[in-house]
Amino acid sequence: MSKDVSVRPGTLYGVGTGPGDPELITLKAARLIGECPVVAHFCRRGGSGQARRIADAHLNADQEELPLVYPVTTELPHGSPEYRERIETFFDESARRLTEHLNAGRSVAVLNEGDPFFYGSFMHAYLRLKDRFPTEVVPGVPSPMAAAALLPTPLTMRDDVLTVAPGTMPEADLRDALTHADAVVIMKVGSHRDRIVAILEELGRAGEAWYVARASTAEETVVPLAESPAVAPYFSMIVLPGRGVRADER
Amino acid sequence: MSKDVSVRPGTLYGVGTGPGDPELITLKAARLIGECPVVAHFCRRGGSGQARRIADAHLNADQEELPLVYPVTTELPHGSPEYRERIETFFDESARRLTEHLNAGRSVAVLNEGDPFFYGSFMHAYLRLKDRFPTEVVPGVPSPMAAAALLPTPLTMRDDVLTVAPGTMPEADLRDALTHADAVVIMKVGSHRDRIVAILEELGRAGEAWYVARASTAEETVVPLAESPAVAPYFSMIVLPGRGVRADER
Repeated sequence: MSKDVSVRPGTLYGVGTGPGDPELITLKAARLIGECPVVAHFCRRGGSGQARRIADAHLNADQEELPLVYPVTTELPHGSPEYRERIETFFDESARRLTEHLNAGRSVAVLNEGDPFFYGSFMHAYLRLKDRFPTEVVPGVPSPMAAAALLPTPLTMRDDVLTVAPGTMPEADLRDALTHADAVVIMKVGSHRDRIVAILEELGRAGEAWYVARASTAEETVVPLAESPAVAPYFSMIVLPGRGVRADER
Repeated sequence: MSKDVSVRPGTLYGVGTGPGDPELITLKAARLIGECPVVAHFCRRGGSGQARRIADAHLNADQEELPLVYPVTTELPHGSPEYRERIETFFDESARRLTEHLNAGRSVAVLNEGDPFFYGSFMHAYLRLKDRFPTEVVPGVPSPMAAAALLPTPLTMRDDVLTVAPGTMPEADLRDALTHADAVVIMKVGSHRDRIVAILEELGRAGEAWYVARASTAEETVVPLAESPAVAPYFSMIVLPGRGVRADER
């Protein structure tokens, strides 16, 4: 579709839908989902995904929906050149589809679980389009906040340092990243569970750690790390609450 | 007030009101603020505070309000034994006032800017009462998410490590904490600005840093760190977006 120069382009909204509980969406996200003529969401083949389910209550019949369906999920190893090429091509193609709507003057709300700028899928569309269209990021409640809300002590208190690290990191780098942290959130635990447990044991902190999955949803699990399942889902987390350290007592 | 054993105790809710924009409160927080018979908020003498302003649209005439007014803010140095004693006594007294309502069967929503378990004031009441009453933490959008939403690149992407550290930390500890981080959020910048700039320069990362204050409010400021005001407010932040590092490319 060629650009119609007489039309003011639409705005690309990255809309955080929060951690899972449909009530943990913000008023602003709910409003924009109801107002934008086009609502897009990333999803796997055969599933609409959590963000789309959360948005459901706020959509209306006049809106156009744009599902952006990942071409591959588990068929190829994530680090492989084939996977990367397919996923980059997919994001290029997704940006092209968003461009058609934006050029035609239609604003698009791109749904994003949690917060759009915190390990979100939206950013891949954003980085391709931000220099060509008006954009706005609507922050959401990120999943670590929902996980921490289930623990018996606060995530960060007084002058605690918080480090958020992906469980996918190489062992030495993950250990380095956690060495100076008071509070810790390890995302994307998945198959890396045993390796992460070993690192936390080495740091003498495994006893403070909690395993949390699907916080704020009906399938929510929260147990001490020692009692966590041997096989963890990809989006599960390991959380260590802070210690309430005071700056002058370090 | 003695405990009436015939009454089921109320629930203590820690309600995140989000980063500042009244529209960035969650549906759940808005609902609980409207439903709880008592709504409490921490504030300074002579001001009701941001969380209370955000709650305003959701309160109704039947509710009892409980302002918990900090006895000291800037009169005493924060590290001094006098300050600590006064603030701990204040939190004890606040917990006692909350206890009266909870024992009488009245649930209390304690408002908390951002997220209650992320450097929030609620946790001081929570830690004193959690073993005696039903509690629930309602997560909110924390201020770093609102700050990051204003930047031209995402806060964390792919396998970035994020470190959140208070600017109040001793210099060596702050440097250590930031050494292995990709994305960085430094909270409570205040009078520590120059010291933080020096550390970021030493780490070769000052050029990537942004200064953000009051994100998502009408007074929002976001500028590259080099252009930031010499005197920063206490609740301002310095944010370095991540680099989109891949786990296997570290």
